[in-house]
Amino acid sequence: MPTGVGVAVVGAVSLVGEALVEVLEERAFPVAELHLLDGTESVGHTVPFKGRNLRVGEVDRFEFNRAQLVFLVGASALLSECRVKALAAGCRVIDLSASIPVEQQLCVVPEVNGVLLDALPEQCAVASPLPESVALAIALKPIQQQLELHRVTVTACLPVSSHGSAGVRELARQTSELLNARPLEPRVFGRQVAFNMLAQAEAVDAQGYGLQERRLVEELRQLLDMPELAVSVTFVQAPVFFGESLVVSLQGRVEADMQALSAALEAAQGVELVESGDYPTAVGDAVGQDVIYVGRVRRGICDPREVNLWIVSDNVRKGAALNAVQSGELLIKDYL
Amino acid sequence: MPTGVGVAVVGAVSLVGEALVEVLEERAFPVAELHLLDGTESVGHTVPFKGRNLRVGEVDRFEFNRAQLVFLVGASALLSECRVKALAAGCRVIDLSASIPVEQQLCVVPEVNGVLLDALPEQCAVASPLPESVALAIALKPIQQQLELHRVTVTACLPVSSHGSAGVRELARQTSELLNARPLEPRVFGRQVAFNMLAQAEAVDAQGYGLQERRLVEELRQLLDMPELAVSVTFVQAPVFFGESLVVSLQGRVEADMQALSAALEAAQGVELVESGDYPTAVGDAVGQDVIYVGRVRRGICDPREVNLWIVSDNVRKGAALNAVQSGELLIKDYL
Repeated sequence: MPTGVGVAVVGAVSLVGEALVEVLEERAFPVAELHLLDGTESVGHTVPFKGRNLRVGEVDRFEFNRAQLVFLVGASALLSECRVKALAAGCRVIDLSASIPVEQQLCVVPEVNGVLLDALPEQCAVASPLPESVALAIALKPIQQQLELHRVTVTACLPVSSHGSAGVRELARQTSELLNARPLEPRVFGRQVAFNMLAQAEAVDAQGYGLQERRLVEELRQLLDMPELAVSVTFVQAPVFFGESLVVSLQGRVEADMQALSAALEAAQGVELVESGDYPTAVGDAVGQDVIYVGRVRRGICDPREVNLWIVSDNVRKGAALNAVQSGELLIKDYL
Repeated sequence: MPTGVGVAVVGAVSLVGEALVEVLEERAFPVAELHLLDGTESVGHTVPFKGRNLRVGEVDRFEFNRAQLVFLVGASALLSECRVKALAAGCRVIDLSASIPVEQQLCVVPEVNGVLLDALPEQCAVASPLPESVALAIALKPIQQQLELHRVTVTACLPVSSHGSAGVRELARQTSELLNARPLEPRVFGRQVAFNMLAQAEAVDAQGYGLQERRLVEELRQLLDMPELAVSVTFVQAPVFFGESLVVSLQGRVEADMQALSAALEAAQGVELVESGDYPTAVGDAVGQDVIYVGRVRRGICDPREVNLWIVSDNVRKGAALNAVQSGELLIKDYL
């Protein structure tokens, strides 16, 4: 009987990749062997795992039949090739790259639709959705029926870590230059992000939307199993390092029973509800945690069928690394 | 024939008070004499006006019959007493304090409903609304009919200057402490605001709303003359010094004609429309300007009757000081 499975992490040299390795260790994921992989520029980097520094290998030279479970991290072009190779080698793939159209992939958030993984074939690819979709789906799943939810309007304030370590360095650099009254030369975000809010977190198409905004709509519909759900979304870039903050307005078909709503959120898996009066923040509460925090749950001022709330979540850990590892735990159940 | 009117500014020692004096000078407001007033703790401060440093006097000792036009700035308790005295002395009052219920006051944004000032009696008090209401009303007025607007959902990301100079100092102090790895002791906002988003910008009531959020609903309904408009609002506190950013989702009863919408915004007074692909920001565009900037105007992904947009505005100048001075210009027309 094997004591674990071969696990490969492609895109290991990244915020999410390193967080993923950390979560694998923390949760005592049954790893027989861990293969850390990335492009040539990252070969030779090391990532700590169980007291050792594991060396990152070149993904192009990796034989995927050495792994049973493969995590694809990042936005690199080499990921789609890896996906093909991994599936051909019989691996189960968890894709965090948000590069395949949602319709062609099963999005998984274990707290929301983990049961779907029971029915998958041995070779399969599932997607770990955008961090914003993970947080929204976890918060809305327990209340969607109660409210007879039909519309979600969300402003997602993304931290700079959504752009990886380059985003983190950019905010630190810009802040320091401004505080020292030095001239500012924006590099990563195209303009001043320090002490400023940006209207969009990515390039937009002719209709004015970014790929991730469109993806969130589809992922949320799939995760909540509500193909007709109306979703209005704006991703903005905030001068925050880690942790995303979502301002959410829900429209239901029935008057909201606020007590029942609180009870459902209290009981929900993966949710920490903060009662009115107090409220959670990304930096103060969510970062480093395995749950999302929900606060400011309140009925609309003008419409009793409207409910407004605030969600904060660790975009790197809860929204990406942990969600993928939790999904992995379900995917490899029958190996053990 | 008088060359101007006596003007009093109560609450002169404040971000908005000082901006107001600056705008009076810039716009060559017909000031015969300018009386700068504040509480005892601020007496002796000076504020520059037309090349001189004007000394701030004690408001309690001021005889309001020396002024024809009075601006009330700030949130101080002494303002309601001043309002009574000023009206008794026959002054016209412009109230920026947001302390009187909206139903009891006429809110004025000159670009939106300035004509109403023609019909006012000589003694009168009008309110300069919240900066967020000013920006929203200016942006929505030109398109409300076209869309057959019935619902507005807004996330207003407030800068720390919404809390006056104490808020500005707090963000600077917290940022510097964090960058220098010193322990953080929050003072003004009750928690870390640097590199963090706060779910609310003020204390909330039993239903979960802040006074200003409720006020925005009423002000917007009054300004747009739409008493039935559904407004969903969340004020969040952002780590930004100056300039507010509003994420707005509109629901209309008819499919949006995006060309006609752009044309209406292009033609609107007080609006600078930024075409899709580019977008304005508070720091990069709005701060220091006399217009609001509107960008990311786009139809909903799931609903052709939905329109989403982004507004940035200088909360201190455009949203408060300039709006009040523009209103003052209309109020004193018949004196000149």
